[in-house]
Amino acid sequence: MRGVITTTGGVDLWPHFNGVFAEDAPELTVMQREDVSDPAQVDFVFTFIPPDDLFEGMTGLKAIFSAGAGTDAIMACPSRPAHVPVYRVEDADQALQMAGFAAFHVLWHHRDMGRYVAQQARGEWQRTVTGLSPSYRRVGVLGFGHMGRAIAKGLMGLGYPVAGYSRRAPDPAEPGVEHFHGDGLDVFLARTDILVNVLPLTGATRGLINAGFLSKLPQGAALVQMGRGGQVVEGDLIAQLDSGHLSGASMDVFETEPLPQDHPLWSHPKVLITPHVASIPERRFVVRAIRERLSSL
Amino acid sequence: MRGVITTTGGVDLWPHFNGVFAEDAPELTVMQREDVSDPAQVDFVFTFIPPDDLFEGMTGLKAIFSAGAGTDAIMACPSRPAHVPVYRVEDADQALQMAGFAAFHVLWHHRDMGRYVAQQARGEWQRTVTGLSPSYRRVGVLGFGHMGRAIAKGLMGLGYPVAGYSRRAPDPAEPGVEHFHGDGLDVFLARTDILVNVLPLTGATRGLINAGFLSKLPQGAALVQMGRGGQVVEGDLIAQLDSGHLSGASMDVFETEPLPQDHPLWSHPKVLITPHVASIPERRFVVRAIRERLSSL
Repeated sequence: MRGVITTTGGVDLWPHFNGVFAEDAPELTVMQREDVSDPAQVDFVFTFIPPDDLFEGMTGLKAIFSAGAGTDAIMACPSRPAHVPVYRVEDADQALQMAGFAAFHVLWHHRDMGRYVAQQARGEWQRTVTGLSPSYRRVGVLGFGHMGRAIAKGLMGLGYPVAGYSRRAPDPAEPGVEHFHGDGLDVFLARTDILVNVLPLTGATRGLINAGFLSKLPQGAALVQMGRGGQVVEGDLIAQLDSGHLSGASMDVFETEPLPQDHPLWSHPKVLITPHVASIPERRFVVRAIRERLSSL
Repeated sequence: MRGVITTTGGVDLWPHFNGVFAEDAPELTVMQREDVSDPAQVDFVFTFIPPDDLFEGMTGLKAIFSAGAGTDAIMACPSRPAHVPVYRVEDADQALQMAGFAAFHVLWHHRDMGRYVAQQARGEWQRTVTGLSPSYRRVGVLGFGHMGRAIAKGLMGLGYPVAGYSRRAPDPAEPGVEHFHGDGLDVFLARTDILVNVLPLTGATRGLINAGFLSKLPQGAALVQMGRGGQVVEGDLIAQLDSGHLSGASMDVFETEPLPQDHPLWSHPKVLITPHVASIPERRFVVRAIRERLSSL
């Protein structure tokens, strides 16, 4: 099998993955696009944000692999042959990274950890002594694929009551999770104290988390945004935090990344900002997943 | 059944629990010590730090309940009748509070969250992009009772490799956990990147976590102290952090509480301080557990 690893589009995959392919998948020949003399002989492409003409002449293409959980840039590439399957990274390890990250932020909001960090800076000892039971904080996982499921399982293991929402009912259902789908979104939001978003970016989810959406969460709810930039209308979020309807938010992805230095989210006292680090596929696990997928084609 | 709720010893239980007993366990008669005319008719005591003479004359006593996970002050009370069983709070809810708190701190250290909090204050976008897999960070749970087990299960659900150490081998063993006991402590410490301590305070554990103990952890390890004050030799911990042998510590309990304002731990850049809030039994769950225990006596 011959593959192309793209080096363009802002994510320089070649130097990071070349050696891992050589070591862990020696039966695969990988090269950079500019070293391909006959595109018709390319069997697979590994990319994240492909240049517009990447797939031109690749008449023998069997698979396209995204280097991340998202495939939106690949799907939008004009030269992509529509009949070739696009696989996102779906390694269990990355899902567990997401589960840990979600758990951290649910605890951050539920257990007042931001307050303790601030108190430490002042040498202040003040305790919250009631409401520490996870049974009192209902978590909702918005987007219930591979990652949403891992997040739900991790949080249930810590005692949180978890519901999930997805466009279609997940198959199989996850035992212990209260599932919502289709037009059940409003009921799902109304019972959710901490909302963890892991939806993919699509036409339907762009701008989804706006003022009207956030107002359907109960008073005092918190948002953990670890989906994609462009889903949360950031001005609306700030307004809902300022009005007191929302108690807090964790933001890992943004409309513009890196988040511009003068953006009001940076200094908002109710917002915890991380620089798009909810999960980053470990190279070894990514190559292993590609190898397994190719061997089954 | 008649019970006494103590009001002394620094923890004023009566006003917090009187109403919960009345509502959730109406068949139990509870009163304050000073309202008891005949101590011989007292069936049970609910206390945390009992006054020295609390148990005098209680010749019919059947059970002593601690209001917390620790029983060290009760065990040390001179008037305690040695033949009466002492029960600690062992509600599943409190164990889940511990599991969530431990998960938060494991993620705090593994995922560089303190760095991101500091970066946010400066409006700085810098990412750690490798090493995010939980499979790379071995957690060790020191003390493997009711709470240690819940912590281990919660962390395994987030993908962390977990070992547990206890004085005696736990029965039953927890599937997926690498168990150590007895003289296996040094081997346990040598394989532990993040140590979560939940040991009880006993003569053997007081001052246990000292320079020699901490030096057995691998270079760069982190400590999450959610056991009891007096177990960590705080000066030794600071020295190990300053030398670089340890990368960080989360401290929830201290030799002196509240932690004195001039204590060097407050301002240590590698230390996250919380004011003894790892878990606080929810009153309703505590009364429920006491009621169940008494009905089975």
